[in-house]
Amino acid sequence: MRLDHLGIDMERSRKRVVILGGGFGGVYTAQYLEKALGRRDDFEIVLVNKENYFVFQPMLPEVISGSIGITDTVSPIRRLLPRTNVHVRDIESIDLKNKTITTSPGFRPHPHVIEYDYLVLALGNVTDFRGLRGLPEHALPFKNLADALHLRNHLIRALEEAAIETDDMELRRQLLTFVVAGGGFSGVEVAAELNDFVRDVARNYRGIDPAEIRVVLVHSQDRILPEVSEKLALFAQKILIKRGVEIKLRTRLEAATGEEAILAGGEMIPTRTLVSTVPSSPHPLLESLDLAKGKGGRLIADASLAVQGSDSVWVLGDCAQIPRKDGGFAPPTAQHAIRQAKTAASNIVAAIRGGSKSEFAFGGLGKMGALGHHSAVAEIMGVNISGFLAWWMWRTIYLMKLPGWGRRLKVATSWTLDLLLPADLIELKLSGSQGITQQHFEPGEEVFHQGDLGDRMYIIVNGQAEVVRDDAGIERRLAKIGAGEYFGEMALLKQSTRGATVRCVAPMDALSLPKREFSMLAAYLPQVRESLEAVMELRSQANARLSAGR
Amino acid sequence: MRLDHLGIDMERSRKRVVILGGGFGGVYTAQYLEKALGRRDDFEIVLVNKENYFVFQPMLPEVISGSIGITDTVSPIRRLLPRTNVHVRDIESIDLKNKTITTSPGFRPHPHVIEYDYLVLALGNVTDFRGLRGLPEHALPFKNLADALHLRNHLIRALEEAAIETDDMELRRQLLTFVVAGGGFSGVEVAAELNDFVRDVARNYRGIDPAEIRVVLVHSQDRILPEVSEKLALFAQKILIKRGVEIKLRTRLEAATGEEAILAGGEMIPTRTLVSTVPSSPHPLLESLDLAKGKGGRLIADASLAVQGSDSVWVLGDCAQIPRKDGGFAPPTAQHAIRQAKTAASNIVAAIRGGSKSEFAFGGLGKMGALGHHSAVAEIMGVNISGFLAWWMWRTIYLMKLPGWGRRLKVATSWTLDLLLPADLIELKLSGSQGITQQHFEPGEEVFHQGDLGDRMYIIVNGQAEVVRDDAGIERRLAKIGAGEYFGEMALLKQSTRGATVRCVAPMDALSLPKREFSMLAAYLPQVRESLEAVMELRSQANARLSAGR
Repeated sequence: MRLDHLGIDMERSRKRVVILGGGFGGVYTAQYLEKALGRRDDFEIVLVNKENYFVFQPMLPEVISGSIGITDTVSPIRRLLPRTNVHVRDIESIDLKNKTITTSPGFRPHPHVIEYDYLVLALGNVTDFRGLRGLPEHALPFKNLADALHLRNHLIRALEEAAIETDDMELRRQLLTFVVAGGGFSGVEVAAELNDFVRDVARNYRGIDPAEIRVVLVHSQDRILPEVSEKLALFAQKILIKRGVEIKLRTRLEAATGEEAILAGGEMIPTRTLVSTVPSSPHPLLESLDLAKGKGGRLIADASLAVQGSDSVWVLGDCAQIPRKDGGFAPPTAQHAIRQAKTAASNIVAAIRGGSKSEFAFGGLGKMGALGHHSAVAEIMGVNISGFLAWWMWRTIYLMKLPGWGRRLKVATSWTLDLLLPADLIELKLSGSQGITQQHFEPGEEVFHQGDLGDRMYIIVNGQAEVVRDDAGIERRLAKIGAGEYFGEMALLKQSTRGATVRCVAPMDALSLPKREFSMLAAYLPQVRESLEAVMELRSQANARLSAGR
Repeated sequence: MRLDHLGIDMERSRKRVVILGGGFGGVYTAQYLEKALGRRDDFEIVLVNKENYFVFQPMLPEVISGSIGITDTVSPIRRLLPRTNVHVRDIESIDLKNKTITTSPGFRPHPHVIEYDYLVLALGNVTDFRGLRGLPEHALPFKNLADALHLRNHLIRALEEAAIETDDMELRRQLLTFVVAGGGFSGVEVAAELNDFVRDVARNYRGIDPAEIRVVLVHSQDRILPEVSEKLALFAQKILIKRGVEIKLRTRLEAATGEEAILAGGEMIPTRTLVSTVPSSPHPLLESLDLAKGKGGRLIADASLAVQGSDSVWVLGDCAQIPRKDGGFAPPTAQHAIRQAKTAASNIVAAIRGGSKSEFAFGGLGKMGALGHHSAVAEIMGVNISGFLAWWMWRTIYLMKLPGWGRRLKVATSWTLDLLLPADLIELKLSGSQGITQQHFEPGEEVFHQGDLGDRMYIIVNGQAEVVRDDAGIERRLAKIGAGEYFGEMALLKQSTRGATVRCVAPMDALSLPKREFSMLAAYLPQVRESLEAVMELRSQANARLSAGR
């Protein structure tokens, strides 16, 4: 009623299609629906996505090296979908019975509830490190634009720190070692871009010798790139090795701490940069839905892309298990999602206006992967192509597939300038404080060392640590601490350096509170302050006794 | 000793010049010093800056509209200064007596101490909202690249939320009102770019009527732009008003909450976007130094730019009070900082190698400010220029002053593409959780409303609030709460909506803990959990009594 001059249907006279997700599946479904709408106005389209842009996933690794502009891989969804109502929100819950979606709070915490007649689930998948020791805390995912920018910044940060770290050789080695886990297309592209980037910009760091840099790719199978033929994969391996990437086959990333990657079999690689492109699982919202699920939690769809047993819910893309004509299921790629979008849109229109349903049938056109520095591998219509020609095809095909001429012009310009200019090495620190984080430690690892600056305190979630003090070369154990206990508050409260070393003795998870958060809580939560004071009193008494008994 | 093949002098055989700050003053001093170094190698240069890039300040407002690429206004310091050792760190402390600098922790919390023979302080100034009610919590500064990107993202976020806010008309008005405080060059440029940007991209939002948008510029004097003649200032005012900017003169921003800007005299402007370019003060590190300070805390320099009474410390740029030949002090502009850098560098070389000192003498070339959309004002060698010609000069002069041909090529390309393509509206959310923040509330303002989603809890720092509940249209007051008490934990612990409204009754500051931080602390800090449970027990007993007595 109100605001209807803005094209918002307040009285719900028309059917409403709500699409969840703004990746290839969601955006293309909306685009096909807008096309079907034509001059008629018999249904409305709502798309909910947590970002206001669509990510052109195949080009994401190029953000690492900055060979294209930071926002050139993404397009504003509103521009792509002029007739769709776009809600940029996280989704709080899906109610299939009452046919509503609730989105999470915006500037004010009022609940927003969106009714639907037809629902399209195109939520994709997420990197899922659950159950892997230390990975949720210390591995970097590589799924979206924020991940790509975060990784880029982290790489520059590691180089900056390595350049001035002339005392602590162990830390220096960790800073200059970069590990990528997962040797599929995604992991290989990340490793290739990362390797090119750090080796390229390292020349600008007076304090770094390029020979110190180590880039490691870890893959569980006999060869990388299981998606393509053995010949192409071996070509890719040769290229990567030539460029300085170490490839570790037949092993997996098993665990991680802030200082090392731990592989199956026990090998430990000291590193501060661990990227993992595996494993992934469907969007967590889908877990709780009462719908039939297939392998890996994906929703089971029929050939019309309707969810099994439903006439109002469709599913497509990486979160769906979609049968192929020739047996097996459709793979999670952009080209499949786009074709699925077309089928889903036409079936939704058939459901609204009447008409016969179509079935999804697409065999795939081919596969391509970039290896950095003017090289790639491709398998198109059964033909293997590698090297410069494959790279040239890769660029041309993806450039043409980018949505919108503006974006294409920008990317083509960036690529041209990239030939002339050196790689950019700006570190864009956007997030101020990281807030409270969780960290994982393995036995023998030091949480902090006596004499360090006190920048945070810790609360042990589980596991064990010992507090030791070095008195003129003799190490004494002051205490053993475990779950629920905290440490590191003394240096913060007294504005001094660490009076002792804390070392992990059994695999330990701990909350880490930066100085800023700690100070605010200690100042205003009376319970915390009192308990801190009590612990400090006890510790200083113990210290006094220890010193006296020396 | 170690690593000396990388050009790092471990034994300190040469004199060391340490420069603090990577703005115009610091970077140009290093550049002049590198030039003076020539083929000789009799001193080394260290520059410490918290970012690894140099910001070309005059172009910063262009980042708001994205008319140039996000990183095009900045240059990597390492590329500009190939012979300088660059430390990208925050500075923890300056010890003038022992001639050392301590930088804050990096990946490991070891203290890094840098010795110096000569020190250059070029730390610039910072936005300083201290003592202004609600400004530290709710006003957005505009000083560096992170501020510019943050503002840009915030503007897009406000538009996104306004587009889907069809129920709460008060919130909608707040979201579509944008206030800029401070009518100097910096504030005027921000207001002009902001106005152009939101009006331009709003056309892509189906749910927003451009007539709803309000942009307000607040300035304390009779006219804006005190830096230039009255004629130019009036021209600028006319242009801004024509483009839709409301100008409020002879008043100041006095206070702020998350929902409104409060002006001197009591006028309240409902807004969720408040940018303030004033006031600023020198870098906080300088406050504690035992050096003579002038107006506004700036360090007093003599004409050779040495700090009063010292033969090893120089100061320049915005944190220095530098006498001018014709009386008065040098203004805080880039052109002055660059000339000061030349003087400082030559005097440092004279101190190292012997020679006579030179004195700073520069009258300034002129002033320029952009008004957006192909218009600007400029006062050059006493001549007033306005409109398109001034804008063309503005672009040309600054393009030529950008350091490095690569950067110039990129900016020129971006400007060309900008003529062809619509403004970008990508919201780059990089920081995940904001962590614990402080918020300011004024009497009558609601912290949250009964029925809202529970997304955070609050701890009152000072001030007062009342807890009220609406039972079938009758409002009952449940409690009055004050400093040290907390509220809002019930909805979080029970995963439900807010059971009551909390409204501020006396100006209140509160810590706000997001769900994520709250859950981690409640789970692992036993004292917090116990005390939460006790409070909940009390409250539910009180509620039960209240319900029984109805």
